[in-house]
Amino acid sequence: MKVEDRTIEQIFIYDTTLRDGAQAEGIHFSVGDKIRIARKLDEFGISYIEGGWPSSNPKDSQFFWEAQKIPWRTAKVVAFGSTCRPEVEEPAKDAQLAALLEAATPAVAIFGKSSLSHVREVLRTTPERNLQMIASSIAYLKSHQREVIYDAEHFFDGYKEEPAYALETLRVAAEAGADWIVLCDTNGGSLPTEVGRVTREVAKVIRVPLGIHTHNDGELAVANALAAVEAGATQIQGTINGYGERTGNCNLISVIANLQLKMGKKVIDPERLATLRELSLFVDEVANQRPNPRAPFVGSCAFAHKGGTHVNALRKLLRSYEHINPEAVGNRRRILVGELSGRANIAWKAKELGLEMEDRSPKTKRILEEIKRLEARGYEFEAAEASLELLMRRVLGNYQPFFRLLEYHVSIRSLPVRAYEVCEATVKIEVQGKRRYTVAEGDGPVHALDNALRAALQEAYPQIERIRLTDYKVRIVDPSRGTEASIRVLVESSDGTARWTTVAASTNIVEASWLALVDSIEFYLLRSGGSREMDPEKARD
Amino acid sequence: MKVEDRTIEQIFIYDTTLRDGAQAEGIHFSVGDKIRIARKLDEFGISYIEGGWPSSNPKDSQFFWEAQKIPWRTAKVVAFGSTCRPEVEEPAKDAQLAALLEAATPAVAIFGKSSLSHVREVLRTTPERNLQMIASSIAYLKSHQREVIYDAEHFFDGYKEEPAYALETLRVAAEAGADWIVLCDTNGGSLPTEVGRVTREVAKVIRVPLGIHTHNDGELAVANALAAVEAGATQIQGTINGYGERTGNCNLISVIANLQLKMGKKVIDPERLATLRELSLFVDEVANQRPNPRAPFVGSCAFAHKGGTHVNALRKLLRSYEHINPEAVGNRRRILVGELSGRANIAWKAKELGLEMEDRSPKTKRILEEIKRLEARGYEFEAAEASLELLMRRVLGNYQPFFRLLEYHVSIRSLPVRAYEVCEATVKIEVQGKRRYTVAEGDGPVHALDNALRAALQEAYPQIERIRLTDYKVRIVDPSRGTEASIRVLVESSDGTARWTTVAASTNIVEASWLALVDSIEFYLLRSGGSREMDPEKARD
Repeated sequence: MKVEDRTIEQIFIYDTTLRDGAQAEGIHFSVGDKIRIARKLDEFGISYIEGGWPSSNPKDSQFFWEAQKIPWRTAKVVAFGSTCRPEVEEPAKDAQLAALLEAATPAVAIFGKSSLSHVREVLRTTPERNLQMIASSIAYLKSHQREVIYDAEHFFDGYKEEPAYALETLRVAAEAGADWIVLCDTNGGSLPTEVGRVTREVAKVIRVPLGIHTHNDGELAVANALAAVEAGATQIQGTINGYGERTGNCNLISVIANLQLKMGKKVIDPERLATLRELSLFVDEVANQRPNPRAPFVGSCAFAHKGGTHVNALRKLLRSYEHINPEAVGNRRRILVGELSGRANIAWKAKELGLEMEDRSPKTKRILEEIKRLEARGYEFEAAEASLELLMRRVLGNYQPFFRLLEYHVSIRSLPVRAYEVCEATVKIEVQGKRRYTVAEGDGPVHALDNALRAALQEAYPQIERIRLTDYKVRIVDPSRGTEASIRVLVESSDGTARWTTVAASTNIVEASWLALVDSIEFYLLRSGGSREMDPEKARD
Repeated sequence: MKVEDRTIEQIFIYDTTLRDGAQAEGIHFSVGDKIRIARKLDEFGISYIEGGWPSSNPKDSQFFWEAQKIPWRTAKVVAFGSTCRPEVEEPAKDAQLAALLEAATPAVAIFGKSSLSHVREVLRTTPERNLQMIASSIAYLKSHQREVIYDAEHFFDGYKEEPAYALETLRVAAEAGADWIVLCDTNGGSLPTEVGRVTREVAKVIRVPLGIHTHNDGELAVANALAAVEAGATQIQGTINGYGERTGNCNLISVIANLQLKMGKKVIDPERLATLRELSLFVDEVANQRPNPRAPFVGSCAFAHKGGTHVNALRKLLRSYEHINPEAVGNRRRILVGELSGRANIAWKAKELGLEMEDRSPKTKRILEEIKRLEARGYEFEAAEASLELLMRRVLGNYQPFFRLLEYHVSIRSLPVRAYEVCEATVKIEVQGKRRYTVAEGDGPVHALDNALRAALQEAYPQIERIRLTDYKVRIVDPSRGTEASIRVLVESSDGTARWTTVAASTNIVEASWLALVDSIEFYLLRSGGSREMDPEKARD
């Protein structure tokens, strides 16, 4: 996708989940999280992925290093930073701009000041020097063959304060060669009509394609972004699920659906749009955020009907209380009486896994029932396809477990006065007809169990040595019940090449972790052909 | 407040939390809840309070009965229903309209159909009969001296389908004497520019004051309501915190703040507006909903600042990253202390907590060092202000712990073949000079420890019975190390009024949970003055 391909209908989505989204309270991404999200965004068809601010911390630099090795499908990875500092003689001597170039991305975004009071009181420099900083920084980055996105910070506030100066900052950015000029409502306080009017005025004098960056402080981030598009902007910056500092950034989930389904813009392939809900849940899962059931378009309540009148009317006129077809965004209608099942989804999933199964088969029904039973206990299979595959194989009856648990016991003792702390697990299993009884210590109960289980399996399945747990996430399922509530554990594992995720839930965190661990090992043994060593006739179904 | 007092600047707020809000999944109000919320809304200065649909259930009828006994300050209580049924000869014979009159409210709201396809396929009557139903129902209610609010259901969809008919329904409503005509975006799928344009066209031909009723299916409910106000509507219908079917109704909290602080409209007395956050939290509390920390204007994150750049700029220019003064809506600025923080943040935080400390004092340095030491082990304080306060008090040296742990032991045993699972904890502590040794079972190790610790503390601090764990979050800190990695636990607790969050990290999840639990209890004892019972000289510093 080249910038030159832009037409009036195409709107470019610029995702800043990994940078502005990570400013949200309670959100922390590891480098691995960032890579997983970026790959998902690329697969979905996002145009620009802002990965971080390379000079701000080593984690962001590492992300860009790893990103260089990935063959991106459609996305351009973007490094974020600011114009050079006021005291720097020339951009080539600015360490922060140097870090932007070292990130070796096809595009860079830098922000500069649009507001006179910010120039004077925050930057503590002159209006003229600010213009030079903008122009020279952009020109410098352009001279290194980067696509340059110029973010005009506090643009709407600056424009209200002193329109001529705010416009002048854009003019110098355009002249210096910026490929995009992005109008930022940094404090999130603007109204849609203001954003529309100001964007229209900018579009009259600035020939460079315009973008819009909004925040949700007035609960208007999505509306403000759409108002800018109506006024001529062709790039929208935001985050998945609206993560971001304070009340969050513009929610790209709602923006994408509105642009494509309501405003007739070209944003994402329609078949990708049908994975919008999956994308939203995936990012929540990686960010360890509880999905918002009332999220527009993708929330579990978004097409749930409770009122008797509504349900009645729905039976008579399908669209009577639905603004779009839920399937267009991968969601589904939920009616509290006689909930509709997802047989088609299961059949589709089975096909993906190479399991023979039809929509109408009783097996599909049994799988659905098992999923519903486990989900009621706190399981959640959206982000745990390995556990879903094992569940399907178990229900289909052609699955042979690799070992059988007879007993485990965990003991955790802490005597702070003697600085003594020990965690020990014993595991008794039956594997290939033999009983194994092992004991191991660990840093915590799950680690101790993991060590003991591996010791017990080592002889029968030496390949398990390759498995590493790469992530471990725990979430309470019904938070109103405190420590008595069900606890969901997600375990991500890798053998150095593949990665897979398993899930389990229990009121006991150790039990849930154990079940997810066992699934992870079983899945690996299944994939690595472990069953053949055990019983050649039962080899891969 | 009389309808005749309306001027161009006054916007009337119509709350339907008790009716449309109660359609939300997971929201159930008792009659007592409804009365409490209604009184709070009245005290706040809401103009109309829709109490329910009297004929739909006995609970709503009882609400109206009790409402008659209350001396309302400014609000008019409204009973909600629909036009008469198609098959009824005359409105006087319609049971549902009779129930509306029996509710004995000063105002009634009835909805009618604006969309031809709804008339034909849902009501299953003729367009002409629908017009008669609207006219005769309104005339009947007017003849009983009610203020009549006519809700034009599916108005925007109906207008897009057949504008002449949709307008005709409004015309007959106006002629029949409706005091208000409310344009409803029932399916929540309209865009702000559409709502503005259609409302403007309606205002050209309908002389009756207009209202707007929106839903959040496109994440545009607030923007749509504001667009209607800009086009001439003077009543906004919505719910507190945006509760409602599917994705919810228009959030009145954001509407009120935007109208008054941004658009210069007269809505609520400014001193009442400063209780907006309190109103939001009160309704969440009664509805048993967890407050949304990212809620615009009133959420705990709405004025929280994390990025180092932002905090620096804030010190230089107070408004640099804030769209309004947080105090105008009863909220406050929060500086998050985390990886990016420096001394300035700590000093700011200490001041917020009422602890005397200067930027340059050696105490500030010691606190920062302790924060960094713990963060390197996996702690994270930005979302755990209670632990941060305890840390600061501990470092400052004026803190006396409420008890001392000597030993704990947790045992978890699982024998799946016998369906046997047990989790048991023993705790040995020293409290008020005595040793306590208790044992308890639990659903999991943390629950068992919690039970044992509470049993040990019960006698010395009976107030701990009030503490409930309201959330429990676990996150692995360095996922590249798998189960050996450090595990961070966040515990949120409440005593029914206040909420506080504590944090701890360890490679052992049970140890981390234990430490966070202990912090939570210590914080509560500190705040509830527990230390005085223990040692009067060491009372609150």
